Amino acid sequence: MDTTVNKIGTYSFVAEPFHVDFSGKLTLGVLGNHLLNCAGFHAEERGFGMATLNEQHYTWVLSRLAIEVEEMPHQYEPFTIQTWVENVYRLFTDRNFAILNKEGKAIGYARSVWAMISMEDRKPIDLLTLHGGNIAEYICDKPCPIDKPGRIKVSTQEPVALHQAKYSDIDVNGHVNSIKYIEHILDLFPLERFRQQSVRRFEMAYVAESYYGDTLSFYQESKDGNEQDIEVRKNGAEVVVRSKVIFV
Amino acid sequence: MDTTVNKIGTYSFVAEPFHVDFSGKLTLGVLGNHLLNCAGFHAEERGFGMATLNEQHYTWVLSRLAIEVEEMPHQYEPFTIQTWVENVYRLFTDRNFAILNKEGKAIGYARSVWAMISMEDRKPIDLLTLHGGNIAEYICDKPCPIDKPGRIKVSTQEPVALHQAKYSDIDVNGHVNSIKYIEHILDLFPLERFRQQSVRRFEMAYVAESYYGDTLSFYQESKDGNEQDIEVRKNGAEVVVRSKVIFV
Repeated sequence: MDTTVNKIGTYSFVAEPFHVDFSGKLTLGVLGNHLLNCAGFHAEERGFGMATLNEQHYTWVLSRLAIEVEEMPHQYEPFTIQTWVENVYRLFTDRNFAILNKEGKAIGYARSVWAMISMEDRKPIDLLTLHGGNIAEYICDKPCPIDKPGRIKVSTQEPVALHQAKYSDIDVNGHVNSIKYIEHILDLFPLERFRQQSVRRFEMAYVAESYYGDTLSFYQESKDGNEQDIEVRKNGAEVVVRSKVIFV
Repeated sequence: MDTTVNKIGTYSFVAEPFHVDFSGKLTLGVLGNHLLNCAGFHAEERGFGMATLNEQHYTWVLSRLAIEVEEMPHQYEPFTIQTWVENVYRLFTDRNFAILNKEGKAIGYARSVWAMISMEDRKPIDLLTLHGGNIAEYICDKPCPIDKPGRIKVSTQEPVALHQAKYSDIDVNGHVNSIKYIEHILDLFPLERFRQQSVRRFEMAYVAESYYGDTLSFYQESKDGNEQDIEVRKNGAEVVVRSKVIFV
C-alpha cells in the first residue's frame, strides 16, 4: 500500500478569479494547464522532467488528453490533483489524474498519453530502455474510472471558424500551445450552451504542430446533439488536433 | 520600520511552462493576473477582499493598471510579488506592486487604481468612511519608482483588428475579463516585434464593460515607433479600454 501512495504525486490549487468562466466554475483550459503542470512536477521529482530531459536533448510530447469532470471547482475553492503513471510501453506512456474537491472527494479524472522524442531528429525514444528501464518502477495500479481516449472522425469539409495563430498562442517551442487549442475549441460554442449544459468529457488528440501565422480552420460535427467532434487543420490542409466535447 | 513591513503582502510564484511566451519569458497577461490575485489576497487578509465585500454587496473595480518590467522571469524561475496601498482617496485607492526575481532584486513595478462600487446601483462607495475609515491604516510609504498611469489618446478612426467576445473572454461578472484585453492588445503586434524588442511598460485604462457577443474594434496609433497607443471600442461606438505599450 505504501508504495502505491509514494507513486502518486499530489498537488494543491485554488480556483483563481480570472481562471473561472461566467458561471464561476474553473475553465477546462486552466484545469488542463494544471494537469500538465502536475505531470511535469511528478516527472521532474522522479528524474524524468523536462528540465532534466532537455539536458539530454529529449523532450516529452503530449499525444492524447481526456478529461471527465462531474463538478468543476468554483471560484476561490481549493482542489487537489493526483497524478500517477498507469503504463509504460516502448513508445508511449499513460499518465492518469484524479481531481479532488476540498473534501477530498473525486470530482473528476483525466487520462493522458505521452511520447518522448529526441530534440535533434524528432525521433521517438524507447521508454523501456531509458535510464536502464527504471521508468517502469513508477507504474501504479490506482484505478482511473473513465474511458480511454477514443477515435475521433470528422468528415465535414466546411469550417465553422478560422483563427490565425497569434503571439499569445505560441509557446516556448514555437508551437501553438496545447492549452490554447482547448480555449479556441470551446469558443466555438455559444455562451448559452454553457449556461444550459456542462462539459462532462473533453478529449484532445494532438496530431501535428502548428506555428505562428498559421490559419487554423475548425471543422465541427454533431454526433448526437450532446457529442461534438472537432477537427482543426492548418492552412486548409494538414490535421493539427482532433477533439471530442460531450455536454450533459 | 516593522509597521511598513507588516503593510506589505508578499506572494511567491513560479513561471509555469504554459505561462511563458515563445521566448520563454512570462507573459504580461499572466503577470497581470498574478498582480490582481495578489491585490485580492492582500485585501482579503485585511478584511477588504472581494469575498468579504460581496457579502456587503460592494465590489472592487479596477480602473487603471501600469506595469514596468526590466526583465521578465523565465520559464521555471521563481519570483515574488509584493503589494501595498499607497493612497486612499474618497473614490479611489492606489495600490502598488514590486516584482522581485529569485535573488530578491526588483525586476519590475506596477501601479493600480481601484474604486469600490455598490453591486446594487453601481454607485461609488466613499472609501474614507468605509469600516470607520480603517482602510487608511494600511497606507504604506514604500517607494514605487515608475510613473503613474498617464492619459492615452487615440484619434484614428480606422480599426486594425476586430474580435467578437467569446465564451473564454467572459468572467464571473459577465464582462470581458481584464486580463483577456491585455492578451488581445498584445496580439495586435507581430511575433517578430517581440523577438527584436521587449515590452518595457504597459498601461491599461478600464473605461467601460463589454459583454459576450460584443464586437471589439482595436484602434492603434504609433506615437513614436516604440510607443503604441491602443483604444478598444465596442460595437463601433463606446470606448471600453485604452492602452499604451512601450517597447524597448
